[in-house]
Amino acid sequence: MGFCVGYAKANVVILPKSLSDDFLLFCTRNPKACPLLEVGDVGFPHLSKIAPDADIRTDLPKYRVFRSGFEPTVVTDIESFWRDDLVTFALGCSDIFDQKLIEYGITVQYLEHNKIVPMYETSIPCQPSGVFKGPLVVSMRPIKGSDISRAVLLSARFPVAHGTPVHIGDPSAIGIEKLERVDYGDPPEMEPGDVPVFWACAVTPQAVALRSNPELMITHMPGHMLITDVPIQALSTL
Amino acid sequence: MGFCVGYAKANVVILPKSLSDDFLLFCTRNPKACPLLEVGDVGFPHLSKIAPDADIRTDLPKYRVFRSGFEPTVVTDIESFWRDDLVTFALGCSDIFDQKLIEYGITVQYLEHNKIVPMYETSIPCQPSGVFKGPLVVSMRPIKGSDISRAVLLSARFPVAHGTPVHIGDPSAIGIEKLERVDYGDPPEMEPGDVPVFWACAVTPQAVALRSNPELMITHMPGHMLITDVPIQALSTL
Repeated sequence: MGFCVGYAKANVVILPKSLSDDFLLFCTRNPKACPLLEVGDVGFPHLSKIAPDADIRTDLPKYRVFRSGFEPTVVTDIESFWRDDLVTFALGCSDIFDQKLIEYGITVQYLEHNKIVPMYETSIPCQPSGVFKGPLVVSMRPIKGSDISRAVLLSARFPVAHGTPVHIGDPSAIGIEKLERVDYGDPPEMEPGDVPVFWACAVTPQAVALRSNPELMITHMPGHMLITDVPIQALSTL
Repeated sequence: MGFCVGYAKANVVILPKSLSDDFLLFCTRNPKACPLLEVGDVGFPHLSKIAPDADIRTDLPKYRVFRSGFEPTVVTDIESFWRDDLVTFALGCSDIFDQKLIEYGITVQYLEHNKIVPMYETSIPCQPSGVFKGPLVVSMRPIKGSDISRAVLLSARFPVAHGTPVHIGDPSAIGIEKLERVDYGDPPEMEPGDVPVFWACAVTPQAVALRSNPELMITHMPGHMLITDVPIQALSTL
């Protein structure tokens, strides 16, 4: 989690060309969950702009493979799954503003505890596109009431890292029953005065894959992103 | 409350010159509570920049008069209290961003109900200056969890209207026991999904006056501000 401070991490989604056009539209319809950092060329297992030296088939720590009719599996490389018709999407990651929060004195609990950020499927539906439909996934950070304004302003500077929180406060208002019951990542430890603050999360395509049943979709394993060559500061709009 | 939409309202504090230098320092030490719009010349009952045609002795709807050894009184003009050594301070007012919140589709309950915003003395101490010391007063707006990010961003554009919230969520963390028990203004009606969002408030000098016991301090009555000639848009920094 603490690797390569200063460089942006990216969430990854890989799809056959037969599905990738619909997914591209899905990203543009759900930009807070799926902010596009780069879309690769068909069959090309590299991202020329954000990680020119990386091989997308081997350079993520862990991958999840979704295949129609199979349970998702976790693998450490995808060379055996690679095909000439695959398209790679790199989506922004909340790790980008996490580093800003820390820089400005806001505690980011999951990083302090060396864990993975807690993530939840919500009752908020994504805008569908083709077969792609499902719930918005959010990541949650417990933040002190006096720090929330600053957290909102800092994350607003990074629209490619999901921008501002989609929800602040009562988890049940977005369909989350218990904060301890995470769908991805590690459970948080809420302390007195902590308010749950929710950001859209690029694990959303994985929740969508479970409903959409694509022939093949390969993603990063939640918490195990691609490390890019892009300095975080280069992604700030302000 | 709904008067003169589009023009900024101002909180007012009037003090003898013997106290006004300390109060000016108090304002600069507590800029979120006491953002300076204008400071008048000694003995001059006008504000040349923000309300050139107004007479500060008659043109507020209601005044509060604090005198050492007396209970504060409420009057509708201060002509009988005016002296040649009085200095007028105009401080920014949250009404300025309220109008922005409405423009961007966020409900501002107290305005909808034609009431005065709920205000509370907190456990947060102001930075003292001379005799001036006391608690930070905050105003509170109930806001839906999905609207808070936008409310933070909109209010950030108006540092002279108290800027971003000082606290979001749990009232007890800043010493407020019950939201129904207001110190100034009208009690709020919290609805399901509402999060209490707290902004610094320029009624703070009145709470300070009760502790500091100045020889003479005249203020606006909470909710009864000076209407200036300044368009709200002119106060936006972004």
